Amino acid sequence: MKILYVFAHPEERSLNGSLREVAFAELRAQGHEILVSDLYAMGWKSQVDRQDFPQWPADKRLLVPAASKAGFASAALTADVEAEIAKLRAADGIILHFPLWWFSMPAILKGWVDRVFAYGYGYGVGEHSDARWGDRYGEGMFQDKRAMLVVTAGGWAPHYSARGINGPIDDLLFPIQHGVLFYPGAQVLPPYVLYQADRIDEARFASEAERLRARMRGFLTEAPIPYRRQNGGDYSIPGCELQPWLGGPDASGFALHSADASPVAARLSAVAG
Amino acid sequence: MKILYVFAHPEERSLNGSLREVAFAELRAQGHEILVSDLYAMGWKSQVDRQDFPQWPADKRLLVPAASKAGFASAALTADVEAEIAKLRAADGIILHFPLWWFSMPAILKGWVDRVFAYGYGYGVGEHSDARWGDRYGEGMFQDKRAMLVVTAGGWAPHYSARGINGPIDDLLFPIQHGVLFYPGAQVLPPYVLYQADRIDEARFASEAERLRARMRGFLTEAPIPYRRQNGGDYSIPGCELQPWLGGPDASGFALHSADASPVAARLSAVAG
Repeated sequence: MKILYVFAHPEERSLNGSLREVAFAELRAQGHEILVSDLYAMGWKSQVDRQDFPQWPADKRLLVPAASKAGFASAALTADVEAEIAKLRAADGIILHFPLWWFSMPAILKGWVDRVFAYGYGYGVGEHSDARWGDRYGEGMFQDKRAMLVVTAGGWAPHYSARGINGPIDDLLFPIQHGVLFYPGAQVLPPYVLYQADRIDEARFASEAERLRARMRGFLTEAPIPYRRQNGGDYSIPGCELQPWLGGPDASGFALHSADASPVAARLSAVAG
Repeated sequence: MKILYVFAHPEERSLNGSLREVAFAELRAQGHEILVSDLYAMGWKSQVDRQDFPQWPADKRLLVPAASKAGFASAALTADVEAEIAKLRAADGIILHFPLWWFSMPAILKGWVDRVFAYGYGYGVGEHSDARWGDRYGEGMFQDKRAMLVVTAGGWAPHYSARGINGPIDDLLFPIQHGVLFYPGAQVLPPYVLYQADRIDEARFASEAERLRARMRGFLTEAPIPYRRQNGGDYSIPGCELQPWLGGPDASGFALHSADASPVAARLSAVAG
């Protein structure tokens, strides 16, 4: 299996750099081929701007979705973006590895998503009708790919728990896991998250590395997060609201969009406890 | 009142550019002074890297929080970052205006946060003890400032509703409103959100512009989102988990961190309906 490994940390000699080597070794031991996008090493351009669309007339008002659509359709996006799209097309799996900065991806990785997930590839795919609203959320260009996040956070685990002040980690990652990866159709595995990343000694590194190896070994076989498919009957079309008979009266927010009730049940038991 | 207006769209002749002019005119009519950070026009550098820390030894392993702390303490961050910090210090209000791309900020704006919110300014402020866990979430360098998001989204409003497939807009914006703005202490007003931004005619623009003017008129007086203060008794220290007697058994996720139960009640009534 080919896995695209996107790495977004500015220092190779970091905890993240070390974790990446652990992941690479285990993925290769499993027989996988790794395609690497080391965004800092590549000097990745982060911001979407007019230069991304060489064919768009210089004096014409820039309409980003229209420019992206036209550029993708004629394979005339910039060479760096076209190269990433080629890697994504070749890959059966995608791993995004980054430190959690301000509760989201570093800018350079957000810029990889903003620029590479073009109209016609990452979004704007499929027909819109009374029966379906495009190929998205479970369908689309990533629908045969598995995807997973590898994340380090400086904060403490309880601060990210069901009742932790930062908000539950699953909810903080929802805009990425559901909004960036499931949207174009990927099957998203639960994330690997390492907390208190700035205070790690050798013993904890060893156990965290082993936990990461286990996740890499399971990349092909682990059950993905059971997000609901948009066009599978769970949502109204075109309003794309969850059908009224789905999701218990105790479910709300992001948890509604998983067919597995257990995250909500886990939260409720945490509340009760 | 001085308001720092941070704008993150690559095209001046866009809907976002037009909305910005509407906001500017109304803020000035109210007697406010506007400080502008037009990130694309400034050629803002998005990615955090070694060049951000001129005093950090070239051969030393880059530790981002430590480098940020040392650079901020000696006012030796790069000139572009120091200039933004000076603007923030001078401002009584902050408005972040951006198109919602992949359910979050464009990379260039994320990079403004990543680079400007330095250790000692945006985070890492205050004492850590048995009674308090730093000056954050309601306390910190922004605690006398008001803040607000102005956001455009290509998608339909129902897709962002309480049961919409994208997830509720309040939850999608929580990592920014709570995690980026309330964290250093700002009082965060409800966001202005405009949907179906790619399909707007003159009549709708006129009504949306009027809605934006009303929000700008209320910038000084509107009630902020009642997020719970970390060090006000609602959370355990240092675990920073919500006290067991707070948040009803029906509350979960991000909604727990607002002292106002109405968002949850609204969701439950939506579920029941």
